[in-house]
Amino acid sequence: MLSGNQVKYINALKLKKNRETQRQFIAEGSKLVIELLNGPYHINEIYATPEWIGMNAAFVRPGKIIPQQVTEKELSRITALNTPSPVLAIVSIPSAEAEPLSFNNNLILALDDIRDPGNLGTIIRIADWYGISAVICSETTVDLYNPKVVQATMGSIARIPVHYTNLADFLSGLPASHKVYGSFLEGENIYTSVLSDKGVIIIGNESKGISQDVEKFVTDKIHIPSFATGKKSEEHAESLNASVAAAIICSEFRRRII
Amino acid sequence: MLSGNQVKYINALKLKKNRETQRQFIAEGSKLVIELLNGPYHINEIYATPEWIGMNAAFVRPGKIIPQQVTEKELSRITALNTPSPVLAIVSIPSAEAEPLSFNNNLILALDDIRDPGNLGTIIRIADWYGISAVICSETTVDLYNPKVVQATMGSIARIPVHYTNLADFLSGLPASHKVYGSFLEGENIYTSVLSDKGVIIIGNESKGISQDVEKFVTDKIHIPSFATGKKSEEHAESLNASVAAAIICSEFRRRII
Repeated sequence: MLSGNQVKYINALKLKKNRETQRQFIAEGSKLVIELLNGPYHINEIYATPEWIGMNAAFVRPGKIIPQQVTEKELSRITALNTPSPVLAIVSIPSAEAEPLSFNNNLILALDDIRDPGNLGTIIRIADWYGISAVICSETTVDLYNPKVVQATMGSIARIPVHYTNLADFLSGLPASHKVYGSFLEGENIYTSVLSDKGVIIIGNESKGISQDVEKFVTDKIHIPSFATGKKSEEHAESLNASVAAAIICSEFRRRII
Repeated sequence: MLSGNQVKYINALKLKKNRETQRQFIAEGSKLVIELLNGPYHINEIYATPEWIGMNAAFVRPGKIIPQQVTEKELSRITALNTPSPVLAIVSIPSAEAEPLSFNNNLILALDDIRDPGNLGTIIRIADWYGISAVICSETTVDLYNPKVVQATMGSIARIPVHYTNLADFLSGLPASHKVYGSFLEGENIYTSVLSDKGVIIIGNESKGISQDVEKFVTDKIHIPSFATGKKSEEHAESLNASVAAAIICSEFRRRII
């Protein structure tokens, strides 16, 4: 049984300012919670239906945390999703990584003002699939611990380092030899471009693309061409979704090393 | 000013059964509504803020439809989105296409039980970008006219034919020479597979993948390999999002024809 104070506390964590004060976030979904239980995260509370607890007792390490039994109706009062999952966990936000980024021999993704939580979570999942070392977010990018971001990562949040910083400052600090890729209409066809197996790939904002401040640091402009048969702009899609573009770009970089 | 009956009528269109009775759907977002205005759709009503009407008067063809001025607060009472857009249109559902599918010389996508509205809309947008002839949906796939599907297509709904049918029946009717591709763990590495420039690409359900009924018709099993360095399954993402997988597969098929 959830108390009124618990409901109030959990719902407050849907706002970034409260997550920052409390240093806690909400994670929902069976797969995600199990991944977090097996990862380095500190889980403070688990609220779950009796069915979930019955089926997943083995995943909950003894002595670590005792799930609190709640009804589906109670979960619907605390969920951040449209359809509540049978389990919701309250997890501590890890303290910022002290160690510097090490990506000199690999690819990293830099997100320039990604606003949609689903896009950020999906991009972290893509980074995990394609062995990307880290995701660097502009300070204007949606918060990593937004419940919809956490959910869309499907557990990859536990494996991919994500940092928030001023992108222009970060890019200006790179060695001159470092490639910085960005997608632009006038860019070179990605399918026939020479692509490095190391460097930074910038993914721009959902409607505005890559900002001028960040464009200055792009060394290689690339472009995913459309294969639509309609020649006029109103005869085909104007753009791809940001996470879809990130997926196609990562796929294209990685297939070159096979 | 919206009447109580208008609010009730528009909100009712968020449910499939009411859309089917009324043969109307909701479209939100400036770009989407403008694309629909310029396409073959019949738009019945436009509800928009004075700012939107002022800025987009040129897109609203004279004599076609007069937008009804509403406040942001009124839009928040009828929107199906988390953040209401400045414009919402009520659009007629076109009658089912009488003409048979013509895809013999191209690629089509077949969706086996895609449940997430964002995934369906994004896949239609991807199909539009990559010049896919049509999208065939299993009868269990989320409804095309769900407001979140319509919004996620970003206008591509006006260009890509989408049909609902029994996938097994549809696939069993294909000529024996027709390739049917599907993604499976044991499939061949897509990056090194021989891929045709025509055929059917099946995208499976978000959690269950391709169903057994449909798997029987797959002639070529493919697989998008992970490039994560972790060897154990808990050390990398278990899967890709369905629309992300669709994007990577379409990209890989199309780049071969450059």
